[in-house]
Amino acid sequence: MGKATIGVYGLGTMGSALVLNMVESGFDVAVSNRDNDVVRAFPAKAEGLAGFVAAFTDLADFVAALAVPRTVLFMIPSGKPLDDMIEVIAPLLNEGDTIIDAGNSDFHLTRARSAALEARGLHFVGLGVSGGEAGARHGPSMMFGGTAQSWDAFAEVARTIAAKFEGSPCVDHLGPDGAGHFVKTVHNGIEYADMELIAEVVGLMRDGMGRDLTEIAQTFARWDEGPLKSYLVEISAKVLAATDPATGRPVIDVIDDQAGQKGTGRWTVIEAIRMGQSASTIEAAVAARAWSSEKAVRAAGGDAFGPRVERVDLTLADLEAAFTAARIVAYAQGFRILQAAGAEYGWPLDYARIAEIWRAGCIIRSALLDDIAGAFRGEVPEGQLHLAPAIAEMLTRCLPSLRKTVTAAMAAGHAMPALAGALSFLDAMRQPRGMASVIQGQRDFFGHHGFARIDADGVHHGPWWG
Amino acid sequence: MGKATIGVYGLGTMGSALVLNMVESGFDVAVSNRDNDVVRAFPAKAEGLAGFVAAFTDLADFVAALAVPRTVLFMIPSGKPLDDMIEVIAPLLNEGDTIIDAGNSDFHLTRARSAALEARGLHFVGLGVSGGEAGARHGPSMMFGGTAQSWDAFAEVARTIAAKFEGSPCVDHLGPDGAGHFVKTVHNGIEYADMELIAEVVGLMRDGMGRDLTEIAQTFARWDEGPLKSYLVEISAKVLAATDPATGRPVIDVIDDQAGQKGTGRWTVIEAIRMGQSASTIEAAVAARAWSSEKAVRAAGGDAFGPRVERVDLTLADLEAAFTAARIVAYAQGFRILQAAGAEYGWPLDYARIAEIWRAGCIIRSALLDDIAGAFRGEVPEGQLHLAPAIAEMLTRCLPSLRKTVTAAMAAGHAMPALAGALSFLDAMRQPRGMASVIQGQRDFFGHHGFARIDADGVHHGPWWG
Repeated sequence: MGKATIGVYGLGTMGSALVLNMVESGFDVAVSNRDNDVVRAFPAKAEGLAGFVAAFTDLADFVAALAVPRTVLFMIPSGKPLDDMIEVIAPLLNEGDTIIDAGNSDFHLTRARSAALEARGLHFVGLGVSGGEAGARHGPSMMFGGTAQSWDAFAEVARTIAAKFEGSPCVDHLGPDGAGHFVKTVHNGIEYADMELIAEVVGLMRDGMGRDLTEIAQTFARWDEGPLKSYLVEISAKVLAATDPATGRPVIDVIDDQAGQKGTGRWTVIEAIRMGQSASTIEAAVAARAWSSEKAVRAAGGDAFGPRVERVDLTLADLEAAFTAARIVAYAQGFRILQAAGAEYGWPLDYARIAEIWRAGCIIRSALLDDIAGAFRGEVPEGQLHLAPAIAEMLTRCLPSLRKTVTAAMAAGHAMPALAGALSFLDAMRQPRGMASVIQGQRDFFGHHGFARIDADGVHHGPWWG
Repeated sequence: MGKATIGVYGLGTMGSALVLNMVESGFDVAVSNRDNDVVRAFPAKAEGLAGFVAAFTDLADFVAALAVPRTVLFMIPSGKPLDDMIEVIAPLLNEGDTIIDAGNSDFHLTRARSAALEARGLHFVGLGVSGGEAGARHGPSMMFGGTAQSWDAFAEVARTIAAKFEGSPCVDHLGPDGAGHFVKTVHNGIEYADMELIAEVVGLMRDGMGRDLTEIAQTFARWDEGPLKSYLVEISAKVLAATDPATGRPVIDVIDDQAGQKGTGRWTVIEAIRMGQSASTIEAAVAARAWSSEKAVRAAGGDAFGPRVERVDLTLADLEAAFTAARIVAYAQGFRILQAAGAEYGWPLDYARIAEIWRAGCIIRSALLDDIAGAFRGEVPEGQLHLAPAIAEMLTRCLPSLRKTVTAAMAAGHAMPALAGALSFLDAMRQPRGMASVIQGQRDFFGHHGFARIDADGVHHGPWWG
């Protein structure tokens, strides 16, 4: 090769997959890694692919192999490992070169790193990459935050290796500095909500409707051919249908019921609340994972209050519509968070484009995202996705089933935090007049905070202040 | 006077009230303030009280008037104003002197200030003060975080001016550095939840049961004589009964229905989530305030989905029991957050004492807190307040009404996020086996995260990985 189009440092699961994707697409790629054996073993993995891989254990050689302006992509653990490597690589680069962080970094840190490297004449990119290993290898969805110059340098590779939705690459330049990582964080928050909604629906089918896992898996497979079509519904059908080789039982019945989390769901909720947003479905999903991990508390709660749940009189059509409505709310709340961040950080986020690049390659890809992209290209009352005509129409159709499902389930003792959180949002957000006047009255009474009146400007106090 | 027992800097509403409380109790107090006119006018306010007020416009004089070791209490805005004043005062103090921050500071900053001043030989205290102006003047509830020496120096004043519950002062040394401010933050989080529960119950009575505000106020006044006895129920009765002099309408009907918030509710939720806790009732209260502020979105939602809510078939006894159950959950979730912080920061928090010092003087004072204090002095299964026998018994009695109220209300279209959040918590926490295995299966399928099995140690993968 002459010069490599891009350098990739970090050859773990995700880094390797991205490199092989690039090489398969015909790009020449320089690679390196902290472990020399990994570096030397890597080119064999790319044998037979269209492009060339040059593997370097020496970082100066690695950098020297790159076409100018250089682009170095890191796929390594965030935090100190990344900062350490930036300090090593930056002195080897020249003004105008770009460093891309393709890990799941906190966008606040991405902003700080961007500012620090800009002062040194370098571009720094926070790149959200979704789709897991398979996505990275065969087409991820990617959310790019950085300068125009760094996008110019990376756009061809990005568009080539990205997942395609009807030919359109699922990647775009979303904004400067932390925009890409923030959008990826919210993507993961929506993913948490969607997964929790599925878990609640499965529980209701099994424990409230007496269906066995085979039937439930078949139902999910069927739903994957309708409006709920999505990667998570598709894989849920497979997960629910899987048999454990060791015991012959359904896999779901041998997996411990304590959910792990790596942080992006929490980040989404924390950032949302910090900006005055409350995303009830995502909050409920984070809560459900946290509560699930307290197994001894749940067992003691069963002793104290009885673990019993009762049968519910619901149809599969009710559940399908309820899930659809709640999924819409989860997406709508995710976009509300993006809108708040766009305003706070001055990011020119294009919500239709974000929906479009989520349509393929990423974990939350779904048929619904195509509807959402279309909705954002049309009229969006008050900027609210759930009020856009096509989406509001779906919600209007599904809301009775959501209401019926949530109330029947909760009456029968089933925990439905995410489905209920979606319903609470929709009900709170259709009341032109709510009960917050009671809260404002209390606050003025005990704290002299004052309140606004419906019939006059200014700050007023109640008659209790004389 | 010889030397003043304490110096107070900051003579706004809360500072003035605290000083007058101290002077009325017989303490000699030195005061100062950034506005010289305020300083000079202040002593007249304390005329006729038992102690003496010495007012200083010169800070060196102010400090020189204090008995050694000196205690200087600041009641000024948190953030830069506080840090600026610390930098001015600290050089005037000697090793072993104490600076108290009695404002609502972020406990992380309190921890940082404590460490910085400790390095200069000074004690720094984060003091949570609850009860509003009336509390400060006639007896607040106070949460003290600091060193043993600083508590020795302040304890007599604290115990004397604090609210009393059956003779016991509502103040104590809760732990080092940020412990007092953190406990105050969680107090406010519980306060948010309790206020939102009241607002939801009022809305349900009015819009679902057709009661007028006079009847609702009478109901709250009656509840204030039973298990729900509390300051917030007491003042709600007054707020709901109040007539607006300008229009002759109920005050509640002329107050704009957009709730403000100053941050402590959000802080509680953010810190909780950061530590892996999810306090669904407090989250719902923060959400409800945030959503209320989006009035145009709510109006558009009414246009899109109809603002209509229907009648519910509930009794006042149902509502009383539902509110009681949800209030217990709000407290229990608050204590879960305190327990998480105690573990994270190594604070030796005494949960029974915290409940005791909240029994009088503060906004959330309630009969229930006496039950809670008793519960924490007895057996507490898994450390969970809601499982302590006396509390679990109340919950068992009230849970059917909570379930009936939430489901009837949500079926009829009323937004009940906090009541529903309480029910979701109780139901999720009484399931020895939940649906998180579905989430773990999904995570392993798309991300190769692995899962724990119920029948073997170690990390396992599903058969989908071959």
